Amino acid sequence: MAEKVSIEKKVLSKNDQIAAEIRAGLEKQGIVTLNLVSSPGSGKTSLLERTLGALNDKLKMALIAGDVQTVNDARRLTRAGGKIVRPLVTGGACHLDAQMVKKVLEKINLAGTDVLLIENVGNLVCPSSYDLGEDLKVVLISTTEGDDKPLKYPAMFRRSSAMILNKIDLLGMSNFNPEQVKKNALSINPHLTIFETSCTKGTGLDAWYNWLLELVKAKKAGKS
Amino acid sequence: MAEKVSIEKKVLSKNDQIAAEIRAGLEKQGIVTLNLVSSPGSGKTSLLERTLGALNDKLKMALIAGDVQTVNDARRLTRAGGKIVRPLVTGGACHLDAQMVKKVLEKINLAGTDVLLIENVGNLVCPSSYDLGEDLKVVLISTTEGDDKPLKYPAMFRRSSAMILNKIDLLGMSNFNPEQVKKNALSINPHLTIFETSCTKGTGLDAWYNWLLELVKAKKAGKS
Repeated sequence: MAEKVSIEKKVLSKNDQIAAEIRAGLEKQGIVTLNLVSSPGSGKTSLLERTLGALNDKLKMALIAGDVQTVNDARRLTRAGGKIVRPLVTGGACHLDAQMVKKVLEKINLAGTDVLLIENVGNLVCPSSYDLGEDLKVVLISTTEGDDKPLKYPAMFRRSSAMILNKIDLLGMSNFNPEQVKKNALSINPHLTIFETSCTKGTGLDAWYNWLLELVKAKKAGKS
Repeated sequence: MAEKVSIEKKVLSKNDQIAAEIRAGLEKQGIVTLNLVSSPGSGKTSLLERTLGALNDKLKMALIAGDVQTVNDARRLTRAGGKIVRPLVTGGACHLDAQMVKKVLEKINLAGTDVLLIENVGNLVCPSSYDLGEDLKVVLISTTEGDDKPLKYPAMFRRSSAMILNKIDLLGMSNFNPEQVKKNALSINPHLTIFETSCTKGTGLDAWYNWLLELVKAKKAGKS
């Protein structure tokens, strides 16, 4: 498999080059860019729906909704009030890559945009390897998935800046221990900012909104 | 990316060769082999724990517990009464492949074994492409993941023979519609056998146990 490893390195290095170009372009425009990653069904789209509902008047947001198949998520985000929403269907690929994002960005006018939110394919492994030119990765994990997941899928938690522990309304329905999942995540990455939310019920989201607003403020301060 | 595609084809074709060898070996020994696939946290390990509890006296089972990191699952399965349990840690890879399984099988004495259960890495995309030499793939989906998942990750549902709709004890806690998920899954693959279970509460599992027993009976009948 040496040949496979060497070709993977080449693909990743090419990806990193394109991601660096994307990052430079977004930085120039002062846009905060987040790459949202998680297992399928952890609540990435629900989080974005809530975020649109709460911050659409305060921030100009652009959204890219990645999926293996279907444009369901992009439709949901448009219905939730998203003004710039683009689907990115990989057609089988298990992650977004920088080239795919570049192609989408070439067709969006981002003038005046504060935040670009990229919803990755639901996959707790592969997206961790592909830089999309984002400022930060945000990993979601839901209380129905098992509290040992950070230990079993460490790369994603190591490379993320924030972790959203979602579906806290379902705590107590299984043997999931929220203190244990936080301890496990912080053992992999002590710098994680952690939010505890229920995107279905709409609870615990203010801290997330404020964090996002602070990121935008800091980016603008850095530019001025 | 033509080079990447061509190397992927080569890797898959090499994988298929090894899988065919594994399949021939297991067939010769009359062993029913299942490859369990799902998102992280859908309940693969819980299903295997329940299956050991119910069938350990009726069937001789061997289990391979795949994970990106940790041997947590293998430990759980041993505690649940598994007599032949082997961890298979990929060390970062997002799926099991036939070569990894071959290496594990070389070190197990499968004499008299009725069923080999392989728990894949939690990932609803990549494991669909890698034949491990199994008779059948079984896909799990839980009621907390969203009822559009079969449409969004179609390859896995197309290549599976059975679907286990798990965590039915949590129905009603979200807007997940069990009829819709079944409709979606059957639109991708009309031949799916569907089970509805709660591995936490232990409900709905008899149909699954009987299906497994029938597979073993049919395999033995085929050999005699």
